[in-house]
Amino acid sequence: MKRLLVIGIGAGDPDHLTLQAAKAIARTDVFFLVDKGEVKDELVRLRQDLIAEHGRPPYRIAEARDPERDRDASAYTAAVQDWRSRRALACEALIGEELTDGETGAFLVWGDPGVYDSTLAIVEEILQRGNVTFEYEVIPGISSVATLTARHRTSLNQVGRPVHLTTGRRLAEEGATAEDMVVMLDAHCSFTGLDDFHIYWGAYLGTPDEILVSGNVAEVGDRIRELRAEARARKGWIMDTYLLRRTPHADR
Amino acid sequence: MKRLLVIGIGAGDPDHLTLQAAKAIARTDVFFLVDKGEVKDELVRLRQDLIAEHGRPPYRIAEARDPERDRDASAYTAAVQDWRSRRALACEALIGEELTDGETGAFLVWGDPGVYDSTLAIVEEILQRGNVTFEYEVIPGISSVATLTARHRTSLNQVGRPVHLTTGRRLAEEGATAEDMVVMLDAHCSFTGLDDFHIYWGAYLGTPDEILVSGNVAEVGDRIRELRAEARARKGWIMDTYLLRRTPHADR
Repeated sequence: MKRLLVIGIGAGDPDHLTLQAAKAIARTDVFFLVDKGEVKDELVRLRQDLIAEHGRPPYRIAEARDPERDRDASAYTAAVQDWRSRRALACEALIGEELTDGETGAFLVWGDPGVYDSTLAIVEEILQRGNVTFEYEVIPGISSVATLTARHRTSLNQVGRPVHLTTGRRLAEEGATAEDMVVMLDAHCSFTGLDDFHIYWGAYLGTPDEILVSGNVAEVGDRIRELRAEARARKGWIMDTYLLRRTPHADR
Repeated sequence: MKRLLVIGIGAGDPDHLTLQAAKAIARTDVFFLVDKGEVKDELVRLRQDLIAEHGRPPYRIAEARDPERDRDASAYTAAVQDWRSRRALACEALIGEELTDGETGAFLVWGDPGVYDSTLAIVEEILQRGNVTFEYEVIPGISSVATLTARHRTSLNQVGRPVHLTTGRRLAEEGATAEDMVVMLDAHCSFTGLDDFHIYWGAYLGTPDEILVSGNVAEVGDRIRELRAEARARKGWIMDTYLLRRTPHADR
């Protein structure tokens, strides 16, 4: 039987790696890297550094080119699912050709594999197609959300209160749907106008380029938009996330 | 200046510790343990094991007795805040008496300090009272939520969809408020009756006693209630959490 590990490696800081993840890397024979193309070279390098530090030779690295995703498609979910299916095909080929029975392969996933990441869905799709079979295990990682709240030294939730995790796209469409919201995958600063919220914003979390801003949206929103545009232009990519918490009436 | 570290140590598996947390433990002079009383001795022992393994002598351990919380109080938030304030007093005394300038103290927090944990609020309350001053840093940890989804090999979210984190108390009061919900702190199996949801349930996550059950609530609800009651009686305490995901119409 082939074995597959889906390993969460944390949000960007190499020291976010858990002991469990380090041990998993050490027992991996083949690392599957799916190249995100021209952008995010730094992320690829960071992943290679983790392999170099914690991998136990001899190991192999098998790379596939990530399929392009149609980012202009109006049907977001369909576009993502189409891209996922093509990615699943590429990964299926890698697992079929590069991993032999009794060996362990691994995908290293930024953050936590359970939080707004596609790897688990891709692995399930490959298993359902049935062309390759394997056992697999998931190793949790420090998510960008956990890193965001830690760096801002704030809790995700207030006492006994709920928290809404959502996407920039949904926030833009639906407006504020909760008192406490974490927003992922927001390319358009969809917090704009939510002036009765406090924002805890972070970009490149856990890396030397980390940027943190917090304050009332009315006061710091412009600064975040500027910093974000500037950083994105300078580095060619940005990964950011934020927590919105409605300001208590007394503090408005 | 005194320094304080709030260190997330993961959900129960000693290997959930991150390299960052291990390094933080190694630079700690005084560990503050707030004893939860008669229950959860195992958790206290696990924490002591982590200190023994990763601490760098000489270090000291300072213990305080956790104040009792009025669990029968009708006003939940007020009861928690009262308990927190008394806990803050106990911690303030520890920091004032046991930690000298230039030294580093640490609280080791199960899971992630940002997820339904009171330590950060207590630290802020101590700082606001102003009787002791210190710098502090928060180190994220693997939460029980990340452990739950990893062990069930499922994602927290569906593609582009939101997730609601809530408490058992709120779920019982409000019913299902989202298609995907994570429920924390549920002493009463408040999933009962949510028969069009799939449940991914886990108790003692990350420990040798871990129990996992998943399936439609209608089918596995009784089994979870039985397992939970049995385990709680046997061990004297239980920590569990679960993800509810509305079953697609086609699968009902």
